[in-house]
Amino acid sequence: MQLARVVGTVWATRKTETLDGLRLQVLRQVGTDLKDGSGTVIAADAVGAGVGDLVLYATGSSARQTTVTENRPVDAVIMAVVDAFDLDGKVIFQKGGKGDR
Amino acid sequence: MQLARVVGTVWATRKTETLDGLRLQVLRQVGTDLKDGSGTVIAADAVGAGVGDLVLYATGSSARQTTVTENRPVDAVIMAVVDAFDLDGKVIFQKGGKGDR
Amino acid sequence: MQLARVVGTVWATRKTETLDGLRLQVLRQVGTDLKDGSGTVIAADAVGAGVGDLVLYATGSSARQTTVTENRPVDAVIMAVVDAFDLDGKVIFQKGGKGDR
Amino acid sequence: MQLARVVGTVWATRKTETLDGLRLQVLRQVGTDLKDGSGTVIAADAVGAGVGDLVLYATGSSARQTTVTENRPVDAVIMAVVDAFDLDGKVIFQKGGKGDR
Amino acid sequence: MQLARVVGTVWATRKTETLDGLRLQVLRQVGTDLKDGSGTVIAADAVGAGVGDLVLYATGSSARQTTVTENRPVDAVIMAVVDAFDLDGKVIFQKGGKGDR
Repeated sequence: MQLARVVGTVWATRKTETLDGLRLQVLRQVGTDLKDGSGTVIAADAVGAGVGDLVLYATGSSARQTTVTENRPVDAVIMAVVDAFDLDGKVIFQKGGKGDR
Repeated sequence: MQLARVVGTVWATRKTETLDGLRLQVLRQVGTDLKDGSGTVIAADAVGAGVGDLVLYATGSSARQTTVTENRPVDAVIMAVVDAFDLDGKVIFQKGGKGDR
Repeated sequence: MQLARVVGTVWATRKTETLDGLRLQVLRQVGTDLKDGSGTVIAADAVGAGVGDLVLYATGSSARQTTVTENRPVDAVIMAVVDAFDLDGKVIFQKGGKGDR
Repeated sequence: MQLARVVGTVWATRKTETLDGLRLQVLRQVGTDLKDGSGTVIAADAVGAGVGDLVLYATGSSARQTTVTENRPVDAVIMAVVDAFDLDGKVIFQKGGKGDR
Repeated sequence: MQLARVVGTVWATRKTETLDGLRLQVLRQVGTDLKDGSGTVIAADAVGAGVGDLVLYATGSSARQTTVTENRPVDAVIMAVVDAFDLDGKVIFQKGGKGDR
């Protein structure tokens, strides 16, 4: 999995029928220093994440292992909103607190 | 998934029998700034996209989760034509309008 | 899928039994400008491609979706020999003609 | 698989139900020279690794081939804590000894 | 698949039970010029390769398509020891002969 920040949303009406009802979010990868990386991924949202949230996303066939993405042609899924993470024993990020924007 | 623009088409007569009837499009990856990236992907088309369309494509085993690509040896599929997307609360692209070429 | 040119062949006698009878080709990735890229891939050949042919190959689990690669430990397969492709409305490559070597 | 060092932990309460009880570790990739690489991965922990441990992780659908990750939306798993490895006939790393920090 | 040279071995006692009995080799990727690349991969060995051997390895779910790796959390497998390969009609490598070290 990778850390990313939700930065936007994609809308599409012409799509495969199996995509109906899925929310597609634009993610910007962030490093463990919480700085924006250059990578961007469009991911299905399985947890109701909002713009600005720090999230974890999974890719590949693992992205289909949620009830909302099962059997759908999606290769990336937001499977968790990050509450906190630490690095070398120090808290780097706490939702609504340290490191949050 | 990634954003891309349809830029061409590939034709092949000598191919595995399971590819019959599939339309193979040439995609150029685009960033969220809508600028062309350097990456190119050949993808099966599950939505009838045309040259110039901004699309989403999925890769890996997820590319086979559509009725037209099921059980076929394709690792990339166009699964949606993008109508619009926003970034940090601003509309970046609207089909036939802002950001469209 | 990606475009590539067949540039060689690999032989191996000590291999997993499931590889028996598979032809393994050396592919050099080519861009849509038909210039050689730096990437090299060894792929199972499902279509009888020859050295010099411009081909499409698929990777990952999709590489096992052909009768010759089913259930085999191969992660790349040549699934089509390219006849032609166009880009932005112009023919870039035609087998035995424009762009072919 | 790749070598990595466990450098932290991620906490999330809003997540897909299938993630309950999984420990998510922050990994920093290391080369065979044991120097830190720039890559970071968040992986499910199937072996009870601790911060500082040199581990092996697997990615993709293979990350779901453990009893703790089966059918879960995770694309990386720690499947072994490294005891030792050698390179060109020389021991490079021994847990609690040479090369360990 | 990719070409690589076996350069070492990894030992681990604390690992998922499904890894028991698997030999894990350290591979260094090599190009078709037989020069060492910078990439390193840890792969399960399905063919009994030794240090110094030029091998082919497969990644992803395809790495589990051998009797020794089936249902195991491994994402890379050595599935062949290379006897020879040619490039543009010239023999580049022959085991025990040209290009072998």
